[in-house]
Amino acid sequence: MSHVVIIGGGFGGLYAARTLKSTDVQVTLIDRRNFHLFQPLLYQVATGWLSPADIASPLRAVLKRQRNVQVLLAEALDIDVTNRRVILKDGSVSYDTLIVATGARHHYFGHTQWEQFAPGLKTIEDATEIRRRILSAFEAAEREADPEHVRSWLTFVIVGGGPTGVELAGTLGELAQDTLRQDFRHINPAESRILLVEGADRILPTYAAELSAKATAALARLGVSVHTGATVTDVQPDAVIIRRNDQSEHIPTRTVLWAAGVQASPLGRILATATGVELDRAGRVMVAPDLSIPNHPYIFVIGDLAHYRNQQGQPLPGVAPVAMQQGQYVAELIQQRLRGQTPPPFHYQDRGSMAIVGRAEAVADVRGRRFSGFLAWLAWLFIHLMNLVEFENRLLVVIQWAWNYFTRNRSARLITGEPPSSTVVNVKQ
Amino acid sequence: MSHVVIIGGGFGGLYAARTLKSTDVQVTLIDRRNFHLFQPLLYQVATGWLSPADIASPLRAVLKRQRNVQVLLAEALDIDVTNRRVILKDGSVSYDTLIVATGARHHYFGHTQWEQFAPGLKTIEDATEIRRRILSAFEAAEREADPEHVRSWLTFVIVGGGPTGVELAGTLGELAQDTLRQDFRHINPAESRILLVEGADRILPTYAAELSAKATAALARLGVSVHTGATVTDVQPDAVIIRRNDQSEHIPTRTVLWAAGVQASPLGRILATATGVELDRAGRVMVAPDLSIPNHPYIFVIGDLAHYRNQQGQPLPGVAPVAMQQGQYVAELIQQRLRGQTPPPFHYQDRGSMAIVGRAEAVADVRGRRFSGFLAWLAWLFIHLMNLVEFENRLLVVIQWAWNYFTRNRSARLITGEPPSSTVVNVKQ
Repeated sequence: MSHVVIIGGGFGGLYAARTLKSTDVQVTLIDRRNFHLFQPLLYQVATGWLSPADIASPLRAVLKRQRNVQVLLAEALDIDVTNRRVILKDGSVSYDTLIVATGARHHYFGHTQWEQFAPGLKTIEDATEIRRRILSAFEAAEREADPEHVRSWLTFVIVGGGPTGVELAGTLGELAQDTLRQDFRHINPAESRILLVEGADRILPTYAAELSAKATAALARLGVSVHTGATVTDVQPDAVIIRRNDQSEHIPTRTVLWAAGVQASPLGRILATATGVELDRAGRVMVAPDLSIPNHPYIFVIGDLAHYRNQQGQPLPGVAPVAMQQGQYVAELIQQRLRGQTPPPFHYQDRGSMAIVGRAEAVADVRGRRFSGFLAWLAWLFIHLMNLVEFENRLLVVIQWAWNYFTRNRSARLITGEPPSSTVVNVKQ
Repeated sequence: MSHVVIIGGGFGGLYAARTLKSTDVQVTLIDRRNFHLFQPLLYQVATGWLSPADIASPLRAVLKRQRNVQVLLAEALDIDVTNRRVILKDGSVSYDTLIVATGARHHYFGHTQWEQFAPGLKTIEDATEIRRRILSAFEAAEREADPEHVRSWLTFVIVGGGPTGVELAGTLGELAQDTLRQDFRHINPAESRILLVEGADRILPTYAAELSAKATAALARLGVSVHTGATVTDVQPDAVIIRRNDQSEHIPTRTVLWAAGVQASPLGRILATATGVELDRAGRVMVAPDLSIPNHPYIFVIGDLAHYRNQQGQPLPGVAPVAMQQGQYVAELIQQRLRGQTPPPFHYQDRGSMAIVGRAEAVADVRGRRFSGFLAWLAWLFIHLMNLVEFENRLLVVIQWAWNYFTRNRSARLITGEPPSSTVVNVKQ
């Protein structure tokens, strides 16, 4: 029986595996992690709203009844195109058809030394680390005597005004203004300074301009100040330097969060070396109209690792719906090939884009119709929950959401891992 | 105003703080962590049933409306009895009355080198580490070709047949027999070998003998074999050696969990040095009838760090109800002293003891009446949930419990942290 190997259990890989359910092929899904991560809600783990397990489904549980799929917990290091084998960290696995869906990581435009001071948000561990830093900053401020240091602990800088940056800034604003309101005795969390730094002339630059304006206003109500046309020129342990209108500004802060720039998974470069396929500047693979690699009809690249242009010549954004549709498309293509058919090129059905700004505030652009406010937030919630409930156990997230919404509670604000570093020597009483 | 300092936000410290609510004192609660941990359910995190946030309440959230309490996220290193100051890792805080409630850690009877191979279960990090090891063992077995190695990955040894060991073994049995039943393609998790090793002649030695027998039978139904009268003589990376009836047995296993023996917090020894108070063999402080340190009426020790004998001369067990009642007692004593009264000695009201064995199976001893089976399980559930709902947001745990009960689901079975080590070189297909 033909063997389809899928590397990556994100939206693309998982949807490919599920769509191959009643197909006469053997499927092996390889992932380094034992769970599928619902990345669009990762910022909610980072701000203590949801628990890691609320947005992660064990891959084996999701696929347990699909008897033609085996899950392999392993790391793919290389692809031997000639012998059709995926080289793992410990072993190898041969394929007839290969689907590479290993996604992207954030990157620092050549400044990898910034990562230690400005973590990005791609994994569960990233999210709990960011949660630790945010909560520890409030704790350090509570214990700090010097007002200038208090100010620096209560200053949060988010770099990148795309959906992730906007969502992080908005929920951080809510945390400071609302959730933590009564928690401290020496500081007022509502006096936190939250800056959202964006290089373009408006946040959410891929959205309509009116939605950017709405989002900016909604963020302002949550105490977030937006700095557009500003680029980060340095990140230090206790400050960030931003440049704007040819002026440099030194902003003392202990918490910088990185939501700018993505870099495709290293398997992109490996595929380029092995097949000669072109990569774009972010390391994404320039795929053929059927998402295969030119001259390698049995290797497909989907999701954030693929560079694919729509009919208007625009590259598709790195969002879950693109990956899901590409996974389904490739699975259907494999089925059609088994029947001797040649399918039409991939076509992305854009059902709109949305970003959440706060507790009951979002912006949405659905086929040219623009919403904002509570209605957009409800739409966002509905669409995300519909996606979530596809997997087992997701009804609980809905309950948790509703509960948190009505109680304004964030029960998951745990500081785990390393304790905060602090140089405080006197305790206020 | 008089300043009461409480070290430790466990059951003892937290109940003391809450009972001081409408008292005319200032309270400072010091803890290294920013949350109260509901330790009796920790084993459920270790087996992927609940998320860490489900059993942890942020201390600031629990105490936010109690304006006479401040929470201090700090580590207490020493106590300067002469000047009435608690020395922190970074600073110090002075007290008029001190309540030390820093609990206990597991210990290895002098074999600290065993800890790396046999983690204990006291913290959230312990629980996620144990969860990682258990789930990774099944993953490694799935990929292993050598049947002997498969067998060793599927062998789990739990050392210590008290309530924690019994609960761990029972839920691990359920995980193997039930939850993971359909998850793998090359192994059958139900063939796992789960051993519970206890030095005494029966498990749950502090319970009535008939309950020990009931628990043993219930564990057997979950595939757990109980080895009593057996002591561990060595723990190695890939085996455990147990001694029983003067015979040594070498058991190949990759997963050993430690649920035997506790050692009091190091603050016990510090108090002994500073005040001359006696310690018992486990390092617990031998407190006066009012839980103070003899000749130091303003220093109290409560919970797992205290050694207190009931009227029958039996030391009280290290369980949550004892700590809660001691916290309340000391808080009330402080109130009475403010009114010039001298309270009677502490008296523990034993409301019974319970251990859960499986999904719908428990043993309970309530004032001499012994239950087992589903009824005991319901009683256990009710009592724990009543305790949980005292804190914010705990209704969700009830919902999650009910959900998991009816769906037999464990959504929190995430492997986070380090990936499993593996020496496998061939992938089965």
